[in-house]
Amino acid sequence: MGKKFNTSTPSGFPEFSPREEQVRQQWISIISETFSSYGFQPITTPLVEREENLLGKGGNPKEIYALKRVLDDDGDTSHSGNTLRFDHTVPLALYVARHQNELAFPFKRYAIGPVFRGERAQKGRFRQFDQCDIDIIGMENLSIKNDALMPAIIIEIFQKLLPNNDFVVRINNRKILLGFFMDLGVSEDQTKKVLDIVDDLEKLPKEKITEQLFGLGLNEKNINKLFDFINIKGSNEEIINKLELIEENESFCNGVAELKEVVAILLQLGVSEDKFIVDLRIARGLDYYTGTVYETTLIGHERLGSICSGGRYEDLASVFTKKKMPGVGISIGLTRLLSQLLDIGILDNAIVSHLDILFIPADEIAIGKCLELSSKLRSQGYKTDVYLESKKLRKKLDYADKIKVQYACIIGENELSDGVIQVKNMKAGEKENIKNENILEFFKKN
Amino acid sequence: MGKKFNTSTPSGFPEFSPREEQVRQQWISIISETFSSYGFQPITTPLVEREENLLGKGGNPKEIYALKRVLDDDGDTSHSGNTLRFDHTVPLALYVARHQNELAFPFKRYAIGPVFRGERAQKGRFRQFDQCDIDIIGMENLSIKNDALMPAIIIEIFQKLLPNNDFVVRINNRKILLGFFMDLGVSEDQTKKVLDIVDDLEKLPKEKITEQLFGLGLNEKNINKLFDFINIKGSNEEIINKLELIEENESFCNGVAELKEVVAILLQLGVSEDKFIVDLRIARGLDYYTGTVYETTLIGHERLGSICSGGRYEDLASVFTKKKMPGVGISIGLTRLLSQLLDIGILDNAIVSHLDILFIPADEIAIGKCLELSSKLRSQGYKTDVYLESKKLRKKLDYADKIKVQYACIIGENELSDGVIQVKNMKAGEKENIKNENILEFFKKN
Repeated sequence: MGKKFNTSTPSGFPEFSPREEQVRQQWISIISETFSSYGFQPITTPLVEREENLLGKGGNPKEIYALKRVLDDDGDTSHSGNTLRFDHTVPLALYVARHQNELAFPFKRYAIGPVFRGERAQKGRFRQFDQCDIDIIGMENLSIKNDALMPAIIIEIFQKLLPNNDFVVRINNRKILLGFFMDLGVSEDQTKKVLDIVDDLEKLPKEKITEQLFGLGLNEKNINKLFDFINIKGSNEEIINKLELIEENESFCNGVAELKEVVAILLQLGVSEDKFIVDLRIARGLDYYTGTVYETTLIGHERLGSICSGGRYEDLASVFTKKKMPGVGISIGLTRLLSQLLDIGILDNAIVSHLDILFIPADEIAIGKCLELSSKLRSQGYKTDVYLESKKLRKKLDYADKIKVQYACIIGENELSDGVIQVKNMKAGEKENIKNENILEFFKKN
Repeated sequence: MGKKFNTSTPSGFPEFSPREEQVRQQWISIISETFSSYGFQPITTPLVEREENLLGKGGNPKEIYALKRVLDDDGDTSHSGNTLRFDHTVPLALYVARHQNELAFPFKRYAIGPVFRGERAQKGRFRQFDQCDIDIIGMENLSIKNDALMPAIIIEIFQKLLPNNDFVVRINNRKILLGFFMDLGVSEDQTKKVLDIVDDLEKLPKEKITEQLFGLGLNEKNINKLFDFINIKGSNEEIINKLELIEENESFCNGVAELKEVVAILLQLGVSEDKFIVDLRIARGLDYYTGTVYETTLIGHERLGSICSGGRYEDLASVFTKKKMPGVGISIGLTRLLSQLLDIGILDNAIVSHLDILFIPADEIAIGKCLELSSKLRSQGYKTDVYLESKKLRKKLDYADKIKVQYACIIGENELSDGVIQVKNMKAGEKENIKNENILEFFKKN
């Protein structure tokens, strides 16, 4: 029979091995605990939304999956127009639109879960992937101070997730860039193109960028001015001081004032100043963002790109409601990031066994004792199991090896009558006889 | 603009409110922690599987959703034949088939996540719902002893989830029923029908059942024999003793021996005997099960049906591989169960605020102190937040009310100069001034 079926996962729909999956779950629990420690509430909207709503908020119909029953002949049309969400933002906009009267604003929510995009499958591109988002949504207004929470949360999360790696959150404000471009004579409809070019600054050589800016009609003087500007260096305080000296238009000055406030609040939150830098090159491609923008760089692994990004936006949901709802948020592309980090091997130490102690009854008669002790240790917080199959002792130890358990506790007829347990440290290969009554104490010490 | 869009969730795709969602996440974390404490590993297969594989393992094409991009004109056919999983069992069978050479058997896995069924939407029926499954899969063989772990785990989970409710796991073995039917002269192809009738015993009146059994050709004597049999009562030990006295065929005797062993192991695991009962009326509709079967009844809420069910099966994956893989497993239909329990109100006490402490700066000048103290308490494990909007104090307190936070800490100019915090217990309505340096101590006591 087996030959007829292709049992591999469909292209673009990844699966993690049990050991990788453990890391994924560890990460999700660290991320969600950090989000909620800052007062964000979890909301879980359905994976399925109305097609009209996804398209209405700018979804790409070539990438959105619609649902259709394999056999659909009973005249039930309630399935049509159902589509899989492609991000957490549109579902959030819908959620806030339908619950605006019950919610307290600012509304702080987190969402962790899969989204779907029908892209061409290729390495590192998934059609189903987990995103971890937080957003703070205001009703009509939202204080700029909220923008400072995002870097603080990013930093706390990555310090927990990657304690042995260094990273930095790079902060900018699009109002500064827009104001600066305006004074360079960039017209409003070209602004987005210039932002896109700025966004590519780290990926493309300077000549290429210059060429593109010429293409948009900027002259050499202005291009040099632009390069000088985005290369302003120094401590956060120094950069902001330099920006304050530049006489520009209102947008520019507002942006600088906002950036200054964000940096000030970050310091009041007690965030270490070597973890965030003002970087005028950060633009974020999406035209959705209107103020503060963030990117996060893993030091030594810059080619991964930003591992967590986000920003401030003025309009979450005007497609769905007349209310103006500004917001600020960040997103971690968990599946992609984990798959990249697993590939380069920097998560190998995070992978531990799923089991602390395996009890192995050498003879049938010892099963009862094994069950009793495994229950006792489990109730003390250990992950325990008993090997229950009738196999030779050798096979039972092979199993312990294969699942990479830390300790195997072997009990046979001899151990039963002596009231001891043979405890084998599987990694060290050491064996020790421990008295039944001392077993809990032994593991507490180890 | 807003009027054009229907912002409600699509029919059959439920959403929980933030407060309900909190309970859902609490439940998922209790369930997954209990699963892993017994040595089960998480595996997360994609939500999407190949259509041929879902249909090949008995999926109903009228209920399976296929994916199709909304706009599909670029000749990329790699999206076709992709379907949403309808349970965790077929993905498990595929997973085990493709990884059989790397896995250690018995393979113990858990899966928690959404599955999809394109049913007609109605109250309590969802098209997307979470299932929480564990299974133990053997290669060629799997000891009957594993069957005892399932009730032990069910009991531990529901004691944690519903500490104020009583429940009981009802255990039977289909070999006993099949053997008994055989001796009643029920032909092999009628066995399933009789099992279905037995499965309805609690839902239908006795006359209705009798009528249906007549319809299958059973005579009155045999029907009475059947009723006498399934009504055998007593303690678990007494029922098993009575069964051992009945002289029946091999299937019957094997079933009794298995049931006896399951009960014996449960006692060795230290499971309290008032939490599980042998109940000969339990059959489970699915013809998939071949031995031990389980149902779980919430005492006083019997009309909810079984809140956790499962059983032993002989053939997990023969559609996909030549290897014989027996298994035993259980499943909790989380979305349905939670939605029922929320409806009848027995989870109201489980709902708590998502936030422990909200800091409210009465004046702009106090924001820094609020941020500092909220960071300090957050690092001690409290969920804290600072109200950052420029509003009147009354509005800020309204917000604290609306989000149902337990404590509001108010700091204004006066408090700043006195070095105190006004702590308001929002439930009790009491206010107290606490010195800055004593704030952590205050919350540790409360």
